[in-house]
Amino acid sequence: MWIVRANMSDLSCKLKEVPEQYRTLGGRGLTSTIIYDEVDPQCHPLGPNNKLVFAPGMLTGTSAPTSARVSVGCKSPLTGGIKESNAGSAWAPNIAKMGIKALIIEGKADGYWTLHLSCADGKPVAKFVAADEYTGRCLFDVYPEVFKAFGEKVDVAGIGTSGEFGYPDSGIVFQDMKKRPTRYAGRGGVGAVMGSKGLKFIVLDAAGAPGVDIADEELFKTGAKKMRDALMQHDVTKPKGGLNTYGTCVLINVMNEAGGLPTRSFRSGRFEGAAKIAGEAIFETNKARMGKEIYNHNCSPGCIIRCSNTVYAKDGSEIASCVEYESDWSLGANCGIDDLDKIAKMVHLCNAYGLDTIEAGVTIGVAMDSGLLEFGDADGAIGLLEEMGKGTPLGRLLGMGAADVAKAFGNPRSPTVKGQAMPAYEPRAVKGIAVTYATTTMGADHTAGYTIAPEMLGVGGTSDPLKVEMAKADLSLAFQKTTALIDSSGHCLFIAFAILDIASGFDGFIEEINGVLGTSMTGDEAVELGADILRRERAFNEKAGFTNADDRLPEFMAIEPLPPHNVVSELSDELLDSVYGQL
Amino acid sequence: MWIVRANMSDLSCKLKEVPEQYRTLGGRGLTSTIIYDEVDPQCHPLGPNNKLVFAPGMLTGTSAPTSARVSVGCKSPLTGGIKESNAGSAWAPNIAKMGIKALIIEGKADGYWTLHLSCADGKPVAKFVAADEYTGRCLFDVYPEVFKAFGEKVDVAGIGTSGEFGYPDSGIVFQDMKKRPTRYAGRGGVGAVMGSKGLKFIVLDAAGAPGVDIADEELFKTGAKKMRDALMQHDVTKPKGGLNTYGTCVLINVMNEAGGLPTRSFRSGRFEGAAKIAGEAIFETNKARMGKEIYNHNCSPGCIIRCSNTVYAKDGSEIASCVEYESDWSLGANCGIDDLDKIAKMVHLCNAYGLDTIEAGVTIGVAMDSGLLEFGDADGAIGLLEEMGKGTPLGRLLGMGAADVAKAFGNPRSPTVKGQAMPAYEPRAVKGIAVTYATTTMGADHTAGYTIAPEMLGVGGTSDPLKVEMAKADLSLAFQKTTALIDSSGHCLFIAFAILDIASGFDGFIEEINGVLGTSMTGDEAVELGADILRRERAFNEKAGFTNADDRLPEFMAIEPLPPHNVVSELSDELLDSVYGQL
Repeated sequence: MWIVRANMSDLSCKLKEVPEQYRTLGGRGLTSTIIYDEVDPQCHPLGPNNKLVFAPGMLTGTSAPTSARVSVGCKSPLTGGIKESNAGSAWAPNIAKMGIKALIIEGKADGYWTLHLSCADGKPVAKFVAADEYTGRCLFDVYPEVFKAFGEKVDVAGIGTSGEFGYPDSGIVFQDMKKRPTRYAGRGGVGAVMGSKGLKFIVLDAAGAPGVDIADEELFKTGAKKMRDALMQHDVTKPKGGLNTYGTCVLINVMNEAGGLPTRSFRSGRFEGAAKIAGEAIFETNKARMGKEIYNHNCSPGCIIRCSNTVYAKDGSEIASCVEYESDWSLGANCGIDDLDKIAKMVHLCNAYGLDTIEAGVTIGVAMDSGLLEFGDADGAIGLLEEMGKGTPLGRLLGMGAADVAKAFGNPRSPTVKGQAMPAYEPRAVKGIAVTYATTTMGADHTAGYTIAPEMLGVGGTSDPLKVEMAKADLSLAFQKTTALIDSSGHCLFIAFAILDIASGFDGFIEEINGVLGTSMTGDEAVELGADILRRERAFNEKAGFTNADDRLPEFMAIEPLPPHNVVSELSDELLDSVYGQL
Repeated sequence: MWIVRANMSDLSCKLKEVPEQYRTLGGRGLTSTIIYDEVDPQCHPLGPNNKLVFAPGMLTGTSAPTSARVSVGCKSPLTGGIKESNAGSAWAPNIAKMGIKALIIEGKADGYWTLHLSCADGKPVAKFVAADEYTGRCLFDVYPEVFKAFGEKVDVAGIGTSGEFGYPDSGIVFQDMKKRPTRYAGRGGVGAVMGSKGLKFIVLDAAGAPGVDIADEELFKTGAKKMRDALMQHDVTKPKGGLNTYGTCVLINVMNEAGGLPTRSFRSGRFEGAAKIAGEAIFETNKARMGKEIYNHNCSPGCIIRCSNTVYAKDGSEIASCVEYESDWSLGANCGIDDLDKIAKMVHLCNAYGLDTIEAGVTIGVAMDSGLLEFGDADGAIGLLEEMGKGTPLGRLLGMGAADVAKAFGNPRSPTVKGQAMPAYEPRAVKGIAVTYATTTMGADHTAGYTIAPEMLGVGGTSDPLKVEMAKADLSLAFQKTTALIDSSGHCLFIAFAILDIASGFDGFIEEINGVLGTSMTGDEAVELGADILRRERAFNEKAGFTNADDRLPEFMAIEPLPPHNVVSELSDELLDSVYGQL
C-alpha cells in the first residue's frame, strides 16, 4: 500500500510505502493525522504550505456494505482549523483498490491541471495533463468531456468554479453512479484548497488495480455479514425502509414536528411549508409525475441503504439527484422557500458550481435576513447562486459563506460556529446537537456527533432534546468519538442507526476492521482510536489559535427565544468546556 | 466629574460620580478599563452587549499644549478584540470641560438618534433627538444641517453611511476647526458599533461647562510650560518645522528612500511615484496654485504642532483637508497611484462616508492585487469608494476590510494582523514596527508602538531597521507602554518626538499629569500605568479567544522577499512571544 505525494509546484509525483504508524489508519483518521504531522497550523489555507489529503476508509474497496467513502483533509479556509469532509462515490473504492492509502497534494502550480493516476505492475503511476480548458465552466458540461478524454471507465474527482475562485464555500466533487458531478465532500472549503494548488481534476484509471489487502478474510466476512444483516433489518436502513423510500428528507417532517427545523435563517423552529418539501412529498410527487413508485438509489457501489433520491420535473426529466435533507432544508425552509422544483434547481446549481449546499443555503438565508432579498424569493435565491457561480463581486461575497455575509451586512445573527454554517437542526431546540455544533473540531457540523439519533429518532436510546444537563456533554462526546471511528472506516455514517440499535451490527463493524487490518481491537479500543483522532484534531486547532472561546454558539441564540418552544441556548461554558476537557 | 451612561434601548441617560478607581485614568486607559470591566469579551461586536465608550484624556480640556484628544473604546468588529481609537477635535476638550470623564453608550435603539449633551447647574443634561433624516447621506451635506439644528457653537461627533451599514471599516468622525467632518477615530470599526446602537450623532453644547479640575495648578503649569518649550524647540514639531511645513506626508520620501514604503499592495518597498505624492510636493503644489507658501493648520484647539495640510485644486478650492501620510500612502503608493489630486479626492470620499482611510486604501490595494482593478487606476479606485459609500453588494464586500477582501478573492496576500490592515511602514523592511504590528492588542497599528522614531528618524536613539534581534521586542514593548500612557493623557502622539529627545519635555509631561490628578508619579511609575493598560487589553483579548498564534505577521511576508532589500519577515515566534511574555 502506498502514500502518493503529488507536488504541484514541479508537477512531480512520488510513491512511498505506507509507514507503520499509518498502517491501521484510514479515512478521517489518516487525513487528520497527516495534516497534524505535516501542516503548519498557522499557515495560510490557500498558501503553498497547506496540503490536501485524500484517503479512502479502512474498509473502502472491500465488500463491506455501504463502505465506499473517501475523506478529504486540509487546513480549512472556512474555519481556519483542521478539516475533514467525506463523500461516497465509486472514486473511493477505486483509489483504495489501486493500493493508494493516501494521496497528498502539495505546493502550487501555474495554471490548472488534471492528475491522472493509473496502475502498472500493481503500482500507481501518475501523469499531469493541462486542464485549463475545463476552468470557468459548469461541471455538468465539463464532466462528460473529462470522461471522453480519459475513457468511460475512469473515476473523476474535481472542483467547480467556486474552488477556482477560492471560495470558503467550495467542495470537492466525486462522480455519482451515472457519472454526474453530484457527490460532494462539501464542507469547509476543501475545493478552494484544491483550486489554490492548481489542481482541477483527479482521474483514476483502476484497470489492473491490485485490490485491498485483507489480513483475515474469514473474520472480515463474518463481520461484513453481520453488518449487512443489521442494515437489512433496521427500519431506517432496510430496503424500502425510511431512507430508501423517502431519502434523508424524511427528516423534514420529523424536525418540523419537534420545532427544531430552522426556518427563515433560524428565526423559528417550524416552517409552515414543511410538508411541501418533505421526503414524503418528493416520493408522492415523483409517483404522480412518473406514474410509479420510485425508490431511491445508491450514491456509490455496494450500498445497501440506497438513500439518494431524484427529483423529477413534470416532463419526467431530472431536476436534481440527489436532494438531501440538508440541502432541502438550507435552500428551502431556511430561506422560507417551499417550492420543491426550485429547491432542486438550486441543488443542481450548487453541484454545477461546486458549492456546499449547506453553506450556500445558510448564506442566502443570512442575506435574506439582512435585507438583500425577501424570504421566500426562490428566483432571487437562484440568481444569487448564479452570481456565486460566475464570481461576480456579489458572488465573491456570498462565496465567503454565511459568517462573512452576516459581517458584511452588520448582522449579528450569524448561525455559525468557527465560521461554518449550522446544518438543519436548531441547536436551541436540540441541546445535544448544540453541544456538538459548539465543540466539534470541524465547526458547526451535525455529522461530527449526531446526537439527533437518541434525541429525535429514538435510535441508540432516548434523550430529551430540550433538557439542559451535563449528560449532553457526555452524549455528544460519545457520538463524536464513534463518528471519528466510522469516518475512518469508510462506512457511511448511516450505518450508525443499525450498529446503535443492533448489537451484532456493532460487533460486525469491529470484526470488519480487525479482519482487514489484522488487528484484534475490542469495541472500546476501536472507539478509543476515534478519541485519538479527536485529540489530534483538537491539538491542531489549538496550535492554529483556537481556544474554548471558539467552542460557543452565536450570542443571538442566547438572547432570542426560538418559537415554537421559545427556548434560548442555555449551555453553560462549563458544560461546553467539559466535552474536550474530559477527552 | 461624571460617568455618563446612555442606554439606547430605552433612550435614557444616567449620571454617576466617577468612582475612585477610574479617577486617575483618562483616554485609552479609561476606555480600555471600562471595556475590560463591563463588556463580555465573547459578545458580538454589533450586538446589544457591546458598549461604546468615549473618554477625553487626563489633560484634555486643560491648557496643556496639543492635548485635545478623545479616545473611543469598544470590542472591535474588525479584529474581534479590544479597540481604542482616538482623534483630535474641539469636541474632545469640550466633553472634558463638561465634567464628563467617560460617556458609555449601551443597548440598541430602533431607528437613529442624536444624543445631545448640554450643561445645567454644572451638570451634564442629556436628550435624544430623532436623527433618521441624516442617515444614508454624505457627511459633508449633513454636518452643516446638524450645526444649523443645534446651534453654531456645538461640537459634533458622528458616523457616516459606513457606520450605518455596520462596516468593519468605519470610523467615528469629529469636527475639525472649520466644523467639517474630517477628524476620525478611524480604526477598528468603531463607527459600526456606534451605528449598531442606533446612535448617529453626539452633539455637545458646552455653554456653562464647569471646566476640568486641576489638583495642583502650579505643578501643572510648570509641566505644561516645559512641554510647550520642548515642542517649540524640536525640529519635527516646532513652527515651520517638519510637520508644520510638510505635514505627516513628510514621511513619504523618508520611507521610500529606506525601501520601506509599501507599494502596490506590499509588493515592493519603493514607489517610483513617491516624489509626486510626498509632503514636499503638496507644499510646492499648493504654493504654485495659491501663489504663496501655506503652512499647515491645527486639527484641534491648543495645538502647537499644527500638522494638518489642505490640498488645494488648481482653481483654489479645497479638495481635502487633511491628507495624512497614512492616507496619502494607502490610497496612493499602495494602489500604485501617484496623482495627488485624486488621492485627495479619495480622502474626501472616505471622510464623506465615514471610512478609515488606512483600511480603505489597503482594501483597494488588495482588490487590485486580486485582479478586480489595475494598479494605478485612480478613477476605478474612486468608483470603489463610491460603492462603499452607497452600500452596494460590492461596497459591502469592500467595507469588510482588507483581510476579508483577500479571503473573498482567494488571495493569500493579506497585509493584515488580527484582521486589521497594516499601515504605511513595510514590516519586512522595518523590524521593530513589525514586532509592534504583530503583537499590539489593536491589530496592525503603527501608533501602538512607533519604533519608526529610532529606526527611521533618529528620534529617541537609533536602531537599525533591518536588523533582526531580540532587542526589537524590548524596543517595541517600551514604545507600546509609553504609547498607552500618551494615549491616556490626551496628548497627541506627536509629542513623543519632543519628549524622547528632550528630557525636560518628558519631565513636563509627567508634571502635567501629576498636576491635574494630584498624584506624585515618577516617570517610571507613569509608564507602568501604560503597562497596566496593555495588560488589561491583553487579558480582554485572551478571553475573547486570542492566543500567541494571533501575534503573527501574514505568512506571505515570510515567503516573498520585498524589494529593494529583498528581505522577508524573519521574526521568530520566540521573539514575538517575548513581547507580552515579559509584560
